[in-house]
Amino acid sequence: MSNTTTLQLEVEKAKTSKINEVDFDNLAFGSVFTDHMFICDYVNGEWKTPKIIPYQSLVIDPSARVFHYGQAVFEGMKAYKDDNDQIWLFRPKDNFDRINKSSKRMAMPEFPEEYFFEGLKTLLNLDKDWIKKGLGNSLYIRPFVIASEPGVMASPAEEYKFIIICAPAQAYYGGEVRVKIADHYSRAASGGVGAAKTAGNYAAQFYPTKLAKEEGFQQVVWTDANTHEYLEEAGTMNVFFRIGDKLLTAPTNDRILDGITRKSVIEIAKDKGIDVEIRPVKVNEIVEAAKKGNLKEIFGSGTAAVITPVVGFGYKDKKWDLPKLTDAYSSVIKEAILNIQYNKSEDKYGWRYKA
Amino acid sequence: MSNTTTLQLEVEKAKTSKINEVDFDNLAFGSVFTDHMFICDYVNGEWKTPKIIPYQSLVIDPSARVFHYGQAVFEGMKAYKDDNDQIWLFRPKDNFDRINKSSKRMAMPEFPEEYFFEGLKTLLNLDKDWIKKGLGNSLYIRPFVIASEPGVMASPAEEYKFIIICAPAQAYYGGEVRVKIADHYSRAASGGVGAAKTAGNYAAQFYPTKLAKEEGFQQVVWTDANTHEYLEEAGTMNVFFRIGDKLLTAPTNDRILDGITRKSVIEIAKDKGIDVEIRPVKVNEIVEAAKKGNLKEIFGSGTAAVITPVVGFGYKDKKWDLPKLTDAYSSVIKEAILNIQYNKSEDKYGWRYKA
Ligand SMILES: Cc1ncc(COP(=O)(O)O)c(C=O)c1O
Ligand SMILES: Cc1ncc(COP(=O)(O)O)c(C=O)c1O
Repeated sequence: MSNTTTLQLEVEKAKTSKINEVDFDNLAFGSVFTDHMFICDYVNGEWKTPKIIPYQSLVIDPSARVFHYGQAVFEGMKAYKDDNDQIWLFRPKDNFDRINKSSKRMAMPEFPEEYFFEGLKTLLNLDKDWIKKGLGNSLYIRPFVIASEPGVMASPAEEYKFIIICAPAQAYYGGEVRVKIADHYSRAASGGVGAAKTAGNYAAQFYPTKLAKEEGFQQVVWTDANTHEYLEEAGTMNVFFRIGDKLLTAPTNDRILDGITRKSVIEIAKDKGIDVEIRPVKVNEIVEAAKKGNLKEIFGSGTAAVITPVVGFGYKDKKWDLPKLTDAYSSVIKEAILNIQYNKSEDKYGWRYKA
Repeated sequence: MSNTTTLQLEVEKAKTSKINEVDFDNLAFGSVFTDHMFICDYVNGEWKTPKIIPYQSLVIDPSARVFHYGQAVFEGMKAYKDDNDQIWLFRPKDNFDRINKSSKRMAMPEFPEEYFFEGLKTLLNLDKDWIKKGLGNSLYIRPFVIASEPGVMASPAEEYKFIIICAPAQAYYGGEVRVKIADHYSRAASGGVGAAKTAGNYAAQFYPTKLAKEEGFQQVVWTDANTHEYLEEAGTMNVFFRIGDKLLTAPTNDRILDGITRKSVIEIAKDKGIDVEIRPVKVNEIVEAAKKGNLKEIFGSGTAAVITPVVGFGYKDKKWDLPKLTDAYSSVIKEAILNIQYNKSEDKYGWRYKA
């Protein structure tokens, strides 16, 4: 069952497919995985032969570093199928570069570009039936790296696994999204790992998010840990604010994930003649604009949900609702991105990538 | 091979022991594990029957939350054997309370006290031959909890594993320890998870620590992320500074681990008539004292190494050496703690606990 490409990518195909057991109209995000996975081991200072194997459990020592010291980074990407059954990725080189940037910050080895792209393309083509046509349908792709070396010593591991798993997806968020602006808890420290897509950054948000949910919010918008005066980003998305006709978003720094959707939103908005300002945004500014009725939109940007319009926000003990616009920036920009992703429009940016 | 105690603790004994393969005089810290492990699953809102089983690999889905979102907490404890073959723990209730505090902050379920103590005692008695007599020898105990539920959705898992593994240990640090005082990178944010013993806090330190190692330091002493003016703690230990005859250490807060050794050092030092001040300690204060020759000691406190004397420190581009004292506070206090831990002295504090 094994065969080899020029790159020494070993492929072991699944004997049977699980695809007929899956209800593609009722997918909970990230819960069903395709028939295959990509896996590559780092041992003795190098990445060994990458493999595609049937999706399966990992057998891993209880002392593996990832469980104790959290050396773990990941990416989130999507594959889209167009009307001609062609499969597309969106700016995948940026995801590749970012996972290596994350790895570097976590003292983990970087992964070779050819392994990544060859592995990913082979995997997608093998599991292509799992990618359904139609706007909103996609295959969510989760590359991740974990420190697998046994041993409970608090130092970088010498053994890792680079893995890609894929989950068919519809839309990420159901229902209306209200956000709570953080005034006590925080997500990342200056000089810390907030800009890395590392596992620990996410668990750190769960408890404060749980508290926010108890108050009726779905997500937290984090502020700077130092003063809580400046808006940074949400749990899994960057955040934009529209005051009057101006679109504001925070600059990236070592506390904020440099979102690929964020960059795309900025470029598309500018191209559409929208006045975009990338600068520190004060909580107060947003609250004052909301009071005056000038705060027209808040939306999040991220691979999972593309653009998530926010219907209201809370800060300290006050809550504000946002107006319902018919010509929201969020809708216009979302449509432009989706059209590129699904190969329904020209792509003058060169963002689309054939898998 | 299974039998059951009143607490429904299931015990499956290993068929053979690995103990004869182990060179107890040449143990690398945390790399060899005993014959058994404790494991308990959290499913459907409750902790199931706890088990002791032969030490073995975990079989875990690649989408398990711990790999992606870092829900993982742990503890570090030690068991000591006295001259009469009795096994002792040191303030274990504090470790138990702390792992639950860490779990709470990471939105993970707390673990029942009886399960923890029954499981731990049974495990230690089963693997008691792995605990060697003699000062410095001990069994390092690693309780930890990981989110095992499959699914790449960024929200708290509903399935967890509470595990205890044990590694025979000699001393933790070899050689002299020089520390670098952080002036750019940081360990924890105010409002973040620094006070939790959660996996991600450790990986976050590896890269800056690597940079410090390249400059000739073994560890980093973290400062507040906001101003870098105040000394906080080191990677796996709290830090004490002796200026003249005064012993200084930072107060705990939501960025600092509330160390059990730290608390013990403070209490013992006070009892020995040492003037202890628990208050924010400025980097400048230490540098000025070093310049004047008043900085007599720096030492770290933590379960693994008990007390680690620091022989020198670096700050920005300067380096200072510390004097070699014959009657160092660090030695006096270390001896007092070891005597309690190894049942060589009275324990008026009630810290010793028979396993
Ligand atoms: C913390 C955080 N911010 C922002 C984003 C959005 O980034 P991207 O647009 O690259 O998906 C993500 C994840 O996808 C994230 O995890
Ligand atoms: C970050 C950190 N600080 C301090 C300590 C010392 O705590 P304790 O004395 O309870 O072992 C540890 C670990 O043990 C630690 O991981």
